[in-house]
Amino acid sequence: MSKIPRKIKKFNDKDRDSLYQIIESRRDVRDEFLPKPIPEGVLRRILEAAHKAPSVGLMQPWNFILIRQEKEKQAIKQLFDKANKEACLKFEGEKRELYSNLKLEGILKAPLNICITCDRNRRGDVVLGRTHQKNMDLYSTVCAVQNLWLAARAENIGVGWVSIFHEEEMKNALNIPPTIDIIAYLCLGYVDKLYEKPELEIKGWAKRFDLDELIFEGSWNTRHD
Amino acid sequence: MSKIPRKIKKFNDKDRDSLYQIIESRRDVRDEFLPKPIPEGVLRRILEAAHKAPSVGLMQPWNFILIRQEKEKQAIKQLFDKANKEACLKFEGEKRELYSNLKLEGILKAPLNICITCDRNRRGDVVLGRTHQKNMDLYSTVCAVQNLWLAARAENIGVGWVSIFHEEEMKNALNIPPTIDIIAYLCLGYVDKLYEKPELEIKGWAKRFDLDELIFEGSWNTRHD
Repeated sequence: MSKIPRKIKKFNDKDRDSLYQIIESRRDVRDEFLPKPIPEGVLRRILEAAHKAPSVGLMQPWNFILIRQEKEKQAIKQLFDKANKEACLKFEGEKRELYSNLKLEGILKAPLNICITCDRNRRGDVVLGRTHQKNMDLYSTVCAVQNLWLAARAENIGVGWVSIFHEEEMKNALNIPPTIDIIAYLCLGYVDKLYEKPELEIKGWAKRFDLDELIFEGSWNTRHD
Repeated sequence: MSKIPRKIKKFNDKDRDSLYQIIESRRDVRDEFLPKPIPEGVLRRILEAAHKAPSVGLMQPWNFILIRQEKEKQAIKQLFDKANKEACLKFEGEKRELYSNLKLEGILKAPLNICITCDRNRRGDVVLGRTHQKNMDLYSTVCAVQNLWLAARAENIGVGWVSIFHEEEMKNALNIPPTIDIIAYLCLGYVDKLYEKPELEIKGWAKRFDLDELIFEGSWNTRHD
């Protein structure tokens, strides 16, 4: 292993197109999970991809809790159901009606759930790159989530990110210590069908923004053209 | 465009291997940037990849501020230099000596810098999926950063994430309103050489963890074997 930078592998158009197709066709999956189990070797590749995420000061603050047992998933599903009722009440009229008809999780249907956490003390108090941006360790963990999500899609496995629960209740259910933050609760399973656009857009919840409106040149709110 | 889930593109071993090689060879780049400009078409593809990230409630809370002018980059570099002196003092003895010899940014060397922000009010007060996890909008923006990073690597472009600055000073420099959060300041440029392992490991700052130690089964701290 060289101690100086080495000539890199140059990716070609085919590599690049594979990545762009994976990114383009990645969806947040709630209902399309197939019961087929995920082989251990495939799961290992997906977790390796997550573990290769960038992390501030090489902190690698993540852990992966694998949840496969029906009983465990049932307990989590109850936490979701309770929180989802609360969330639904935040909307009014037609929006509440629409919300209550959305399926927002696949906890029981997905053969595997993964809770990804962040240990904010993993490398001690002082971490290179986190002195001024305290959230960098949380963000590193999210990079691992996104690596995992894309790796799963490349394995023809769908992922759904569930964020509707009380963190303290989830910590109790999974025996997670108070000093550890939950970043993501993910549902994973093979898929053979997916929506072609984000499900929330298909179902009339919201529309995607035009990228052009979101790009500035040189400083905030300054357009190129 | 179908309103129901459709048969998906199945990725094959070659697509999957391309993604894994991109993830494996992605580095946080500080000094290997080449001066060659990034064509607008390539930049557009990279930003499209970022814009296709998952986001809570289809919030898409991100903006991309492109910084290309020498004068603008010089101003940012000054913010970094000031903060980096402060950060260096957090370490003592040999660690401080080692820190002071690390190159931690490529602001001037990289032909393009991109500041990625999060507008926490983009879809109003109530956002589907953010009622219980308030950070979900920040995390969505980090997913966009990671998509961008992998897309850049597939285009043979390196990315370095700079987190050593005072957020308020960066906001002033880029005219970013108080209600907007800065998530990432990135340096981008073509590369033909990279380290084969994380630079912080090569330079003796820290070692990577073994993935096996980070995986639990069913609940926190419970091992499979």
